[in-house]
Amino acid sequence: MIDIVPVKYEDGKMLILDQTQLPCAKEYLELKTKEDIWDAIYKLKVRGAPAIGVAAGYGLYHSVKDLEAGSYESFRRQFMEIKEYLASSRPTAVNLFWALDKMEASLIKAKDLSVADIKDVLLKEAELIRQEDEEACKAMGEYGLSLLKPGMGILTHCNAGTIATAKYGTCLAPLYLGHDKGYDFKVFADETRPLLQGARLTAWELNEAGIDTTLICDNMASIVMKNGWVDAVVVGCDRMAANGDGANKIGTSGVAILAHEYGIPFYMFVPTSTIDCNTKSGAEIHIELRNGEEISTLWYIKPMAPEGIKTYNPAFDVTDAKYITAVVTEKGILYPPYEDSIRKLFEQEETK
Amino acid sequence: MIDIVPVKYEDGKMLILDQTQLPCAKEYLELKTKEDIWDAIYKLKVRGAPAIGVAAGYGLYHSVKDLEAGSYESFRRQFMEIKEYLASSRPTAVNLFWALDKMEASLIKAKDLSVADIKDVLLKEAELIRQEDEEACKAMGEYGLSLLKPGMGILTHCNAGTIATAKYGTCLAPLYLGHDKGYDFKVFADETRPLLQGARLTAWELNEAGIDTTLICDNMASIVMKNGWVDAVVVGCDRMAANGDGANKIGTSGVAILAHEYGIPFYMFVPTSTIDCNTKSGAEIHIELRNGEEISTLWYIKPMAPEGIKTYNPAFDVTDAKYITAVVTEKGILYPPYEDSIRKLFEQEETK
Repeated sequence: MIDIVPVKYEDGKMLILDQTQLPCAKEYLELKTKEDIWDAIYKLKVRGAPAIGVAAGYGLYHSVKDLEAGSYESFRRQFMEIKEYLASSRPTAVNLFWALDKMEASLIKAKDLSVADIKDVLLKEAELIRQEDEEACKAMGEYGLSLLKPGMGILTHCNAGTIATAKYGTCLAPLYLGHDKGYDFKVFADETRPLLQGARLTAWELNEAGIDTTLICDNMASIVMKNGWVDAVVVGCDRMAANGDGANKIGTSGVAILAHEYGIPFYMFVPTSTIDCNTKSGAEIHIELRNGEEISTLWYIKPMAPEGIKTYNPAFDVTDAKYITAVVTEKGILYPPYEDSIRKLFEQEETK
Repeated sequence: MIDIVPVKYEDGKMLILDQTQLPCAKEYLELKTKEDIWDAIYKLKVRGAPAIGVAAGYGLYHSVKDLEAGSYESFRRQFMEIKEYLASSRPTAVNLFWALDKMEASLIKAKDLSVADIKDVLLKEAELIRQEDEEACKAMGEYGLSLLKPGMGILTHCNAGTIATAKYGTCLAPLYLGHDKGYDFKVFADETRPLLQGARLTAWELNEAGIDTTLICDNMASIVMKNGWVDAVVVGCDRMAANGDGANKIGTSGVAILAHEYGIPFYMFVPTSTIDCNTKSGAEIHIELRNGEEISTLWYIKPMAPEGIKTYNPAFDVTDAKYITAVVTEKGILYPPYEDSIRKLFEQEETK
């Protein structure tokens, strides 16, 4: 069973797996002060949108649990200062604000309780944020596993794994659940240039869990598929449009086209919170461009391209819906045409 | 006009561009002794099959030109010792032996001449090896250019450029010839993991020649094509089978499939010496597997994957003939079906 989680709260102690030490060392850091928590998020010691949300929930509780306050108002004032402080650790992380806002909503709802009882409510809310993410990942894992068979070769790109979420990950969840059942998957992990999340994180966590994992360069996906070694591709998603076009780590669209050409199913794992029905198609998704030095120097250590060379360094690309065999969400598996299956999913949700 | 060549022989001096210093420094080394020449080939200061052939021809001449010998037999004995010595510098380089054998054949043919005259014959033979390769590259460049138009976006993978040949390169030759005519190509150079020949060599030589070049990671080829920025793909070839399947640097087959999917022509540049009619299809081509540390550590500087991780590191892959729009040789452009066009080409050669 997988026991790697990026954030733990045990016996009043907040522990995080220091992801900046990976893949060389597996080290849990105890975060004692609000400054420790801010620093861990700022320096990407904890990363992955859901994992940041979990760290923010526990982090806010941990930072207020020993506050002395004679009244709700006094407690709230201090809570809000700390909330704003933690929110400044990574100003582009939507899940960070989402989790902090959830904590604030719990506070307001509990305003008639004693300060001691409010603190209990906050711990429960932080625990709930973690638990709901774990349950969503596990559900995606079970739906995903229903698409796979023992012994399959599976290719993945980037890291949508346990260390990016509360537990299990999104697209790696079925691999962990299958591994527990004795499915002997053979996984190929794309290294995922330029930042090598596949080599540093995915290869690490799968290897740590005892899953047979082979690291390849991104440009080797084609030969591995041609060799007949890949039965399915699983990837995560950063944002999906209403028509099923999905933005994910740069290179995902190329993997999808190769899978399509070689007749291999391509599954995108998409928590429903990642589907944006207000975005009609992938063409409307803005692609972040990053610093070209990520390409032109090796990890900022050594120049590997001529000085001043132009670069193009998009962080994401959009995989057209037509290349996606199925979309796995925590509420079920969606099939094309995605305009219809996505719309129906949200209509069902509304009528619940 | 491009003036970068990997090997020069001027005023009795042998100069090579030290490719191990690229892309950080452009430095020509004078090779004075046979030990210098051996070392330059062994340490990859000169690389690329045709460029190694050119260095071997000049290198052998340069190493024997000051020998004192009273007879042909005495000269031949010393020549053969040096030939064997230089041949040991890179035991897998076919062009190295090919060039050294050509030099020996010239020697034998000139055996009735004086030693001084034999030395002149050897210099001419070395010059001929260089010149024939330059002419072949230029011919490929002209044929290739007939397929391109001013202003086109061109994507290339790995390095089949001027520094790998006598001059011009194979697939980069049309870019240099077009640049001279004012074609304002926009070139995208895949970095080409794991050894980064695209970043270190292709981006360097194109940039040096003043051609508009953008460096991308291999996994960005898909988005660059989707953006509509690529009008043609040009790549080299290490070995082509009789049916037109072509082995080239790992990742080439993936680029070909993407080009096919996006409707972009894919041109493979193949000197006729690279076509092996005894190999029926790409399935018969043996793929060299290399050390996995090329993937798992960054340039052997820093580990970038968990210790002991399995890797798969093929040096080449085979692009199926069906994805190749045209094959550009020094004798003309071949179109599908390649079984026929390749057979006809060699039949014409035989009847000449």
